[in-house]
Formats: sequence, C-alpha cells, structure tokens
Amino acid sequence: MHNHISLLTDYGTEDEFVGVVKSVIFDMAPHVHVTDITHGIAPFDVRAGALALARSIQYVPAGVVVAVVDPGVGSERKAIAVEVAQGRGVIIGPDNGLLASAVATAGGAERVFALSNTELHLQAPGATFAGRDVFAPVAAFLCNGGAIEEVGEQLDPASIMPSVVPLSTDTTHDKYGAGLKCEVIWIDRFGNCQLNIGPEDVEHLGPILRLVVGDEVRSVSIATHYAAISPGALGAVIDSYGMLSICMDQSSAAQHLRLGVTDGVEIYGGSGSDQVSTNVSLRSKSDG
Amino acid sequence: MHNHISLLTDYGTEDEFVGVVKSVIFDMAPHVHVTDITHGIAPFDVRAGALALARSIQYVPAGVVVAVVDPGVGSERKAIAVEVAQGRGVIIGPDNGLLASAVATAGGAERVFALSNTELHLQAPGATFAGRDVFAPVAAFLCNGGAIEEVGEQLDPASIMPSVVPLSTDTTHDKYGAGLKCEVIWIDRFGNCQLNIGPEDVEHLGPILRLVVGDEVRSVSIATHYAAISPGALGAVIDSYGMLSICMDQSSAAQHLRLGVTDGVEIYGGSGSDQVSTNVSLRSKSDG
Amino acid sequence: MHNHISLLTDYGTEDEFVGVVKSVIFDMAPHVHVTDITHGIAPFDVRAGALALARSIQYVPAGVVVAVVDPGVGSERKAIAVEVAQGRGVIIGPDNGLLASAVATAGGAERVFALSNTELHLQAPGATFAGRDVFAPVAAFLCNGGAIEEVGEQLDPASIMPSVVPLSTDTTHDKYGAGLKCEVIWIDRFGNCQLNIGPEDVEHLGPILRLVVGDEVRSVSIATHYAAISPGALGAVIDSYGMLSICMDQSSAAQHLRLGVTDGVEIYGGSGSDQVSTNVSLRSKSDG
Repeated sequence: MHNHISLLTDYGTEDEFVGVVKSVIFDMAPHVHVTDITHGIAPFDVRAGALALARSIQYVPAGVVVAVVDPGVGSERKAIAVEVAQGRGVIIGPDNGLLASAVATAGGAERVFALSNTELHLQAPGATFAGRDVFAPVAAFLCNGGAIEEVGEQLDPASIMPSVVPLSTDTTHDKYGAGLKCEVIWIDRFGNCQLNIGPEDVEHLGPILRLVVGDEVRSVSIATHYAAISPGALGAVIDSYGMLSICMDQSSAAQHLRLGVTDGVEIYGGSGSDQVSTNVSLRSKSDG
Repeated sequence: MHNHISLLTDYGTEDEFVGVVKSVIFDMAPHVHVTDITHGIAPFDVRAGALALARSIQYVPAGVVVAVVDPGVGSERKAIAVEVAQGRGVIIGPDNGLLASAVATAGGAERVFALSNTELHLQAPGATFAGRDVFAPVAAFLCNGGAIEEVGEQLDPASIMPSVVPLSTDTTHDKYGAGLKCEVIWIDRFGNCQLNIGPEDVEHLGPILRLVVGDEVRSVSIATHYAAISPGALGAVIDSYGMLSICMDQSSAAQHLRLGVTDGVEIYGGSGSDQVSTNVSLRSKSDG
Repeated sequence: MHNHISLLTDYGTEDEFVGVVKSVIFDMAPHVHVTDITHGIAPFDVRAGALALARSIQYVPAGVVVAVVDPGVGSERKAIAVEVAQGRGVIIGPDNGLLASAVATAGGAERVFALSNTELHLQAPGATFAGRDVFAPVAAFLCNGGAIEEVGEQLDPASIMPSVVPLSTDTTHDKYGAGLKCEVIWIDRFGNCQLNIGPEDVEHLGPILRLVVGDEVRSVSIATHYAAISPGALGAVIDSYGMLSICMDQSSAAQHLRLGVTDGVEIYGGSGSDQVSTNVSLRSKSDG
C-alpha cells in the first residue's frame, strides 16, 4: 500500500500524455497523490532523464516512482519495477539505463521484476504509450496494495541496464599544467552549466580556476552563490546538489559560452595575475 | 456530488490563468481532485482542442470535465454543460465545436444546459476570463452536489455546435492507382504525425505504402512501434489511439517532412520494388 | 494549521526544481494541497513575478503562499514570512520586491518574520536552492501548525522592500492634445498587452483612443471582449483584472505592434474621422 507516485517523463506538457497517465492513476487508485518531478526531459534523452531522476530521488516521498523516457517502447526492451529502501520505494520504468543511477542513489536494487504480467496492463489499439497502458496501471496496482511479485517474473538485480555516467579525467596542458577534462551534464533554465565534478575535485587547483572551452580561456572564481559573481563575469558555483556549475549572475553562462549538454570543458589552476579577468581570451588575442 | 475535475485549455502555463482557475475550484470545493489533461492547446485552436479532448475522454475519471479554448469569450457564444454517461460525467465549456467530439465519444449528450444562471458566476471587472468566472465556479457547484438544472436554461442536445472532423477521401493517382487523401490532425512532441485514418483504411493497399507529401514520394512500412523503423527511415505506426501516424525512430517525422497540422498527404499502395527504400523521391530523381 | 500552499516561481517546468519543492512539502506535510499559480515567470524577473502574484492573490485559497523569483539566493537578501488577513494567509519568499504588491492587495502586512531559524531548513551542499531548502520546509512547518514566531526574528512590516509599480503620467501631444504615458506591464500567451491604466483613466478621452507606439499611430475602440474587435484591428479591452489591454481578435497584438513588457505607449483621445481605421500610420504615409 503506497499513497504517493512521483512522475518523470519526456512527454512534455503540450500534448495530453501526462494528463492521461494521471487520469488512469486516479481512476484506479483515487487515494494516491501524484507529484510531477518533471516532464521536460528532452525527447528520447535517456541520459538526461537518468541524471534528473538521480538528482531528485533523495527528495521524493516514499512510494512509487514512475520514470518514462522510452524510445524503445513496444520493442523487446524490458519494463521493470525495482524495489528499493526495504520496500518503501519502487522505481518503475523501461530498462534502458534510465533507472540505474537513481536506484544506486536510493541504496541499490533489492528485488527487480519484469512487468510481464499483461493482465495488469490496459488493452490498447497500439503499443506506443506504455506510460498509459503499462506503467500507470502497474503503479496504481502497487499503490492499491498489490504484491510486487505479481507484476511479472523476477529478474537478477545485476541485470539492470547501467546508466551512462560520464566521468572526468585527468589531463595536462602545455601552459597551465595538470587539470581535469570535464563535461557539462546539465544546463538548467537559468543557463547554469553543471559539470561532472564537485568542489573537492578542484580544491588542489586553488580558489581561481582557468576554464578552457574550445579556443577560449576564462578565469573563474569559486563562489557559494550567484550574486557573489561580478556582473558579466563567470563563476564556478557549488550548486544545490554539491556539484560545480559554471554560472553568471542573472544571466545565462550557457548562452555566453555557447555551451550545450555533453560539451567538454577543461579546468586548470589559475594564476594570480588574471584573477579578476572576465575574458582572458580577448586579452590574449590583443597581447598576441 | 463529484470528486474529480479534468481540465483542458489553451491557457498555457506561463501565465497564472490555470493557477487561478484551480484556486477558485479549491476555494469552493476543497474535496475535489483536479487533473490537468493539457493546457498546451495552441491559442484559439478549437479544432486541436476538440481532437485532444476526444482522444482523452475515454480515460478521464468520472466527474466534471472543463474544456476552454474560447476565442469568443464574452460574446454571444453559449457556455454549456453537457451531461453524459447517465450523469457520471458532465462536460463544460464554450459551445463552439470544442466539446461535440468528446461528447459523442462519451456516448452522446443526455441533457444540455446553458450556463445562464449568473448567480453561480464570479463577479469580475472584465468579461474575458470565463475559465475563472464561469466555468470554474459552475464546476465547483456541481462537485458540491449542485443540481445541473440550476446552472441555467435547458437546451436541445441537437443544438450543440459540431466539432470539425476532417474525413479522408478516395483519390486516384496516375502512376500509383487508387489511394486516400488524408490530413495530419495532430503532431505530438516527438514529431509523430497522426493522420485521420486507421490501419483498417489502408489494409487493402498492402504492408508497404507510398506516401505523397507535396512533390515528394516516400515508401513507408506499417510498424507496431517506433524502434521497428529503420534509422533515418519513415514508418506508418499504429499509434496508441489506433490511428495511423507517420513516424521516425528517435527523430521527428514532422521536421523531416516539414509537415504541419492540417497539411494534406496522400497514401497509395507500394510496389514490391522499393519496399526498403527510405527516400523514393531521391532515387526517382536520379532515375529520371 | 493550514491545508493549502500556492506556489509561484521562475523555475520553469523543464527542470525538476518544482517537483523537488513539492516532494519536500508532501514529505513533511502530506495533508497539504499544493496549487501552482505559475512557474513561468521569466528567469530573474522580480517585477513580472510581483505583478503576477498581485493579480492572483485575491483568488488564492487561505493558507500559505510561496513565491520565489530570487536572483540573490544565498546572499545577504532576507527571506521573509508575511502574515496577512488576520493570520489566514502567510506569504513567504525573498524580500526583494516580489511580495510587497501582493501583501498590499491582501490588506497589508500584519507581522513579518525573517526566516532566520535555520533549524527549520534542510541541510544542503550548496546555497542556491532556497525553494527546496528554506521556503518549502518553512511552509510545511507552518501548515503543520508551527507558530510563525518560530521561523525567525520579527521584523518591522515597514521594512519590506517595495515592489516596483510603474505609474502612468500625464503628457501632451502637439496634434492630439492631452493624454497619458503608459507602460506595457504584462503580455499574456495570447499576445494581449496589459497597460498600467484602467478604463476610468481614459474615460474623458472618449470611446475611441489614439495609441502611439514609437512612430506609429493607431486608432482603437474600447471593447468588452475580444470578438468585438474587427478582424485585423486593434482594440482596447477591459481585461479580466479591470485593466486596459491592447488586444486583437484571435491574434497577438504584441506581435503585431512588436511590443514587449516595459515598453511605453501613449494614449490620446481619437478624432471621429478615423474611428474605424485599423492602421492610421499607413494611411498617413500615403497621404503625406
């Protein structure tokens, strides 16, 4: 018996997909409270969905989590239910790498079941809307006290498809010495560019960092909040998830640097001489 | 006494329109659960709203449905409440063609009332926000056990303005023989182009179809899901509503074909010789 | 003890920010009903947030309102809770001008407290997500019956930072005489341009107005609803908040006039001779 379902999808809110999923849930389990984590994952972007789910999972209430970024819907890809946290949570979705990071963050998979019991699914004229026909009714079934053993055959927890998590690597620059090759893993609405490193990864490089993005070299200070960054300058903010983000004060660092998700950036220690520079590259050009 | 309201509008979610409608509902009927079907209908697009409502209606819980795509708000156009399914459902909205398809899908109108009893409406300084001032308070009134007879004068169910539903027509092509003139009636977030025909309409044309879009001729196979379409190719997927949709695997068919809603396409039987072709037009050009 | 929280933010819905805030609320206070006013305020746009909140506040249910447009998050800017309406409402958010207009509309601040009691906040690795770590848990605390005196030190109500509310001013035109300098304070999804004046402000100018936007002069009639405006023409509609809005029928006045929020327009009395003109500027050009 659960009383809460968290939803994360790439359905957007322009179409009626999310509304229909919630309608099915309410119809079958009216006592359930549904919270939308987000439906704004870019279409088909399993990696972005996995990262958003992993960021959110520590905050979602006990109950069922339904995550759907599912380009393989209707194919042989498995749909699964993963029991976590001594049964206080069940994470449901396609087995395509979307769930594994969140499952790990939630303490690991205790039991895993394929959603192979089609008696629990809705009949439908087409196979392309598993959120409505498979995930919603199974989530409602579990919320109504249905046993997870009934959703389908049990699987080996080790068989869950892993999430793709890009790791930073060490690198060395001719002029700047030892540093890190990182990747932009999330750009939020405000244009903040979250990197796949935390402040502890750059501690040895000092409080001023050199950021190399393509041909450009920028000097950035580590900051605890956006307003601490000088107007028009870039900062490396320790964000709300404890990761290092490249940010600007009331402006989009992503636009300013023309950065996209999955773009690589390099980080090196900064010299004292250009600590307050906001645009080292321009000065370098005039110097050269 | 109802405990559920489903909402569909063209209000978007950038402005506070939806929030204010829900505030009014909660204030008057706090026991009611509200589900957003969608608020992403294009501004003023009554036809798109009617189609989305008709697709959704079979899934919405018993209770009240409020639909608002209402360019004529404040004018002489009627606001109506339509009783369906032996009173288990009431569909409320402007009488401008938005409701009729959904009403038909729900089994037809049993009784229809104009929302002419202004005592149930909110006083407001302007007449342009009927969602807040008319539809929300009337929906809350019905959820609180108010009698539908009290919302206003009874109307003839036959007087409801019909929805515009484009029908496919037979056509004949010089080279390809008998076929169908269809129309794109919905393009979803993923770029899938739903046509106004089902798989039964093209069964006699065989498993491979010729799709004529403007000057281009494409060969498409009927598929049960997106991943069954070859990368970069087009497929005709039987979608989750049982309609034929022109789709690509993890890509937007609408962008690829530069198709918009209401655009026409023609469909003919495909010859065996170009079954696996993904772009007949290009080959035709080089052949010619 | 409150049972309702209204949320207004500039978080958008693409990211998981709103979902996480609601997750925290449900986790701490599962009895609470949350209504999203909007999350579509433009990033960092405190003024737009203040105006949307002030427009909505008369409709929000009794309970807690959480408003977050907070570019100064993590800095020295205060976070506050404002008691209004004999304690039936509490408005929570950053003290940066976002709240003052709504507080005034709700009858004024009765008591104000800084959210300085960090024991009520969530621990977090970074200081940039006060919605999750400060505002949500404090709102849940109040909904659970927590005393407002416990959220932190009491402040002088007069110390709340005022909202920026642009006022119209009198002006005189060489040809058109006395008039008003106004400002576009809101452009909604439909392209309606709300001005910072009401119909009473232009009553003395007659039913036909001259609208001066940059180099263009347009003649507009006052209308009670959109459908009363001739196709392709501009109208001055008394909108649902009782303000004067420049509108078109089923079309975007903002696009047509290339108007943006904060743009200035001037309004004068119209002569009888061009009452039905939809585009005075073009005729003037050909006349000249």
